[in-house]
Amino acid sequence: MCQLLGMNCNTPTDILFSFEGFHKRGGETDHHADGWGIAFFEDKGCRLLLDDKPSITSPVAKLVRDYPIKSKHVIAHIRKATQGIINLANTHPFMREMWGQYWIFAHNGNLENFPQHQGCYYQAVGTTDSEQAFCYLLEQLRSKWCQPPSQQALFDEINRLAAEIRHYGVFNFMLSNGEALYSHCSTHLHYIIRQAPFNTAHLVDNDVSVDFATVTTLQDRVAVIATQPLTDNENWTALQNGELILFRDGLPLLRSTAH
Amino acid sequence: MCQLLGMNCNTPTDILFSFEGFHKRGGETDHHADGWGIAFFEDKGCRLLLDDKPSITSPVAKLVRDYPIKSKHVIAHIRKATQGIINLANTHPFMREMWGQYWIFAHNGNLENFPQHQGCYYQAVGTTDSEQAFCYLLEQLRSKWCQPPSQQALFDEINRLAAEIRHYGVFNFMLSNGEALYSHCSTHLHYIIRQAPFNTAHLVDNDVSVDFATVTTLQDRVAVIATQPLTDNENWTALQNGELILFRDGLPLLRSTAH
Repeated sequence: MCQLLGMNCNTPTDILFSFEGFHKRGGETDHHADGWGIAFFEDKGCRLLLDDKPSITSPVAKLVRDYPIKSKHVIAHIRKATQGIINLANTHPFMREMWGQYWIFAHNGNLENFPQHQGCYYQAVGTTDSEQAFCYLLEQLRSKWCQPPSQQALFDEINRLAAEIRHYGVFNFMLSNGEALYSHCSTHLHYIIRQAPFNTAHLVDNDVSVDFATVTTLQDRVAVIATQPLTDNENWTALQNGELILFRDGLPLLRSTAH
Repeated sequence: MCQLLGMNCNTPTDILFSFEGFHKRGGETDHHADGWGIAFFEDKGCRLLLDDKPSITSPVAKLVRDYPIKSKHVIAHIRKATQGIINLANTHPFMREMWGQYWIFAHNGNLENFPQHQGCYYQAVGTTDSEQAFCYLLEQLRSKWCQPPSQQALFDEINRLAAEIRHYGVFNFMLSNGEALYSHCSTHLHYIIRQAPFNTAHLVDNDVSVDFATVTTLQDRVAVIATQPLTDNENWTALQNGELILFRDGLPLLRSTAH
């Protein structure tokens, strides 16, 4: 299966430290070498960088490591192909526009026999179960509402759809529209909130530490969400199976009852 | 106004030579320094690289110059802002999905008083006239057809819509779905077809030459389309005002009667 990484902050923050460990899982410390991608929201705009090469050798990953892009919402994904050949069209995250907002989605898991929906508003371009599920999810939301509903109504509906889709298999995902970041756990997903007083963190995947106190202000708050914890000296919280959390401004603002 | 660059080929080709000259127009040999972007189709997938920094200093432009991405359909754009502030959401090219294909659009020009359409299928995320026109164009196509029509029917409808939209101002654009590349000239657009026997070409914007005979096979055919010719020792063809050309496999396959 794949590796997910998300970040949600109250102020635009670079993801260099987390990505430093995460990108090693694409071919070095783990075997997820079937392409990777990362999306950064900058206000309403979004940079979506994809590569069908392993992240450990990808020139695009080198760009991300060298160029400290600051963002309040980041979603990254390293692929271990289960359904769909290795090519760019099957590389996560996927992007669509809904209600005049870009929506970004990445999935870890495998959905068995997920039905092919002929969407009116959204159709898959590639051949993955993941993109099918994303298009189905957006299709349901867009069919229900012509304009964005309230945050609570949207959260409840995404939670309902996530429960429906996870009947088909493992469905860990991250989803963002540049306003909030939704994380859904089907099997494995962990998060940590970093805020003052900041400490030093040390990566699991390589021997790198950072003292966040030296690179932050007292007001900064950052939520990092990942399939497996990225650091070995901090307390990560495991999401429960069936749990959906909406992160906003670096906090878990809404959470479902786990199933 | 902005600078457009397109490439359409019969075999995946890198755009390094053309981009070498083109990117200098973003802040060095020309003053279009309000961001830039480039889209590469790889089969049905698409890489869309955007930066709100000038292309002459952009780390993303350095990636494109260092990483020879091969593609049959490329669209690049350097922005000189007329409407909409300088930010990522207003940076061309824009991307949407229609009929299970990604569609890429970039515009050179300025549309005055172009009406804001509340699309059912497509809405603008940023605040440019360009993205409004793109969404309007797709909205009309998607409303007319649930599935892709014939190439000729699609060409005729895009031609009709281009004529409608250029009533509002200058509307040079490039559009691609990864199958063909549409180039529409409202004021300035030039193209060249390179095929055997290949010759040496020399850039306008910097003193760089390439002997294409050394980097091609006899079967290769490449159409390069740009606002202004990129080389000073080749014969570029000017599109006529009001002309739409569909390029496929490096050839101008369909062309409208200019107006």
